[in-house]
Amino acid sequence: MTGNSTPAPFTADDYRARMERATRAAADAGLAGLLVAPGPDLVWLTGYAPTATTERLTLLVLAAGTDPVLVVPTLEAPDAEKAAGAPALTLRDWTDGKDPYAATAALLDPSGRFGVSDNAWAMHLLGLQKALPGTSYASLTEALPMLRAVKDEAELRLLTAAGAAADAAFEEIRGAPFAGRRESEIAADLAALLRRFGHEQVDFTIVASGPNGANPHHEVGDRVVERGDMVVLDFGGLKDGYGSDTSRTVHVGEPTDEERRVHDIVREAQEAGFRAVRPGAACQDVDRAARAVITDAGYGEYFIHRTGHGIGVTTHEPPYMIEGEEQPLVPGMCFSVEPGIYLPGRFGVRIEDIVTVTEDGGRRLNNTRREMVTVD
Amino acid sequence: MTGNSTPAPFTADDYRARMERATRAAADAGLAGLLVAPGPDLVWLTGYAPTATTERLTLLVLAAGTDPVLVVPTLEAPDAEKAAGAPALTLRDWTDGKDPYAATAALLDPSGRFGVSDNAWAMHLLGLQKALPGTSYASLTEALPMLRAVKDEAELRLLTAAGAAADAAFEEIRGAPFAGRRESEIAADLAALLRRFGHEQVDFTIVASGPNGANPHHEVGDRVVERGDMVVLDFGGLKDGYGSDTSRTVHVGEPTDEERRVHDIVREAQEAGFRAVRPGAACQDVDRAARAVITDAGYGEYFIHRTGHGIGVTTHEPPYMIEGEEQPLVPGMCFSVEPGIYLPGRFGVRIEDIVTVTEDGGRRLNNTRREMVTVD
Repeated sequence: MTGNSTPAPFTADDYRARMERATRAAADAGLAGLLVAPGPDLVWLTGYAPTATTERLTLLVLAAGTDPVLVVPTLEAPDAEKAAGAPALTLRDWTDGKDPYAATAALLDPSGRFGVSDNAWAMHLLGLQKALPGTSYASLTEALPMLRAVKDEAELRLLTAAGAAADAAFEEIRGAPFAGRRESEIAADLAALLRRFGHEQVDFTIVASGPNGANPHHEVGDRVVERGDMVVLDFGGLKDGYGSDTSRTVHVGEPTDEERRVHDIVREAQEAGFRAVRPGAACQDVDRAARAVITDAGYGEYFIHRTGHGIGVTTHEPPYMIEGEEQPLVPGMCFSVEPGIYLPGRFGVRIEDIVTVTEDGGRRLNNTRREMVTVD
Repeated sequence: MTGNSTPAPFTADDYRARMERATRAAADAGLAGLLVAPGPDLVWLTGYAPTATTERLTLLVLAAGTDPVLVVPTLEAPDAEKAAGAPALTLRDWTDGKDPYAATAALLDPSGRFGVSDNAWAMHLLGLQKALPGTSYASLTEALPMLRAVKDEAELRLLTAAGAAADAAFEEIRGAPFAGRRESEIAADLAALLRRFGHEQVDFTIVASGPNGANPHHEVGDRVVERGDMVVLDFGGLKDGYGSDTSRTVHVGEPTDEERRVHDIVREAQEAGFRAVRPGAACQDVDRAARAVITDAGYGEYFIHRTGHGIGVTTHEPPYMIEGEEQPLVPGMCFSVEPGIYLPGRFGVRIEDIVTVTEDGGRRLNNTRREMVTVD
């Protein structure tokens, strides 16, 4: 996360409502409360992001029967007071040299079970465990997997707009030259396009050409794209505080029969994953549907990652479309469906849309052409 | 941290030696081992920084009697193999859908006490606590406060060079125009100067003019600097992977008697803090020495933060010069001495040097003029 506040026009009342919803969800889950560290959860609940995450404890304490309290270093209290959700919070500041864990412990049920942000610092968790040995903890993802996973209408509108902006970027880049240009140049164009179409933050602009496409974690390098290359484009960021993330695999000039076939298989797998999306289906069902197409085509061992990840105020969050995740899909969830085939040293193909769950099934937030696109 | 590797020319043998030193330190501290998450500790020990820290577990396991093992997602193994310290590591990769905590637990003494990175994700700590309920944990700062705190000769050379580069940036900026320019413009100049003098990463360029100087957490804004302003400049970043951080407070035109006096008090306090630096003195002694000068002058309530923080592969790390920190100073430690006086709504003054501990006392790594500098 960058910046001090979310650019989305959420009000103090919106944040108050989210904190109340979270507190209720915690109680329903048998928790005494939630402890939220700086990061996307805190931004979602309060609009507050410290300028830098340091070792000084900042923690939002949500507990039934009490108002939300934000524990914050005295030094940072002026910044916290400017957050859009500040009117819905009580600030409890602590000064250097004082014990922040004692200050926080005073707010907590000493025998309670608390949900804690996945990314809270271990140091802070250990400090609280020591101050209150009778407490127990569960990560927020484990305790409240649905906390940010179900988006409301306002959020879905922002995610839809972010997807459309990413699509607009793809429509432009497919008309740009590829052969003879470095991956890094094409990536710079993609970043500029995302910004042109309203993204305030670009999180990634993967351009994986030729054999680089076989490494699903390749970002960008100096490789010069050549005629005959398969090129995986995977890009996204934040527009008005909400994430975009889409992938299309293009081909420089006419593809070989094998390349066309592999691309078709991935496209069919992505369609199968999309069609598996409906309320009540398990997350793993989406992965299984996509993976089955690829496995049946004989490429199962080359699909080496999960089918998808959630998206919201970050480009990468729960729920995950992965074997073992039994969480049922609920309307309002938003996640990627992005199967791929990666042939080491040769090429890779990935096709990705963000999909949201509706009562009727899935709705895609990315809608550019999924058949192979050839570029120059 | 940004980027995939430290630009400092450390070899696999250097990293092997650091990991051995850390493992021995852990054993001496009664720990079964150390668990190091992505972040500055991992960079320092292996040269490896994942392109992004996600919820997928990456963890370095150091334990006596075993070789270092880096647990890493399969997807990220190619990146890990490129780290400068990779030859000194065994990679243990895990694939999406498998349990990374079980994979890690298999490497650990099930009843051991482990040091864990301060900034490891709570989710991962909870996963390990659940997989191995007989284990106990301490944060690295608590268990091994000295781990990165004592710099070797090679590191001190890099820190000295970083300080000199920051000083060179100050010498340039003090000759630039201030009045009539926005804080953000002056900050942009400072950032460019840091880069010109060799910094690959700029972490902060604080320009706090007039009343903004009274907020020690003010970074930069749109305020136009005026004649008569006191301006706090606090800037630094990484040069060849090692940190710089210095502050000087300048005045636009001639200061008032009060402004001169307050600046003198801070300068004397900074000198007193510097003179308190010697092997065996407690960290808190440095804070007390600086704070006493400010308190005796009647401004004690306006010095609202600790006197200093350590610096190394990050610009902000242990040891901290703060009341309550009894850790003795050891030759090779490097930290800031940066007292300040903040008069709300009026102005602030801060003067900061990085100081390293030698057998003879402190050595300053920043040596620009500490008497008040007037600017145009």
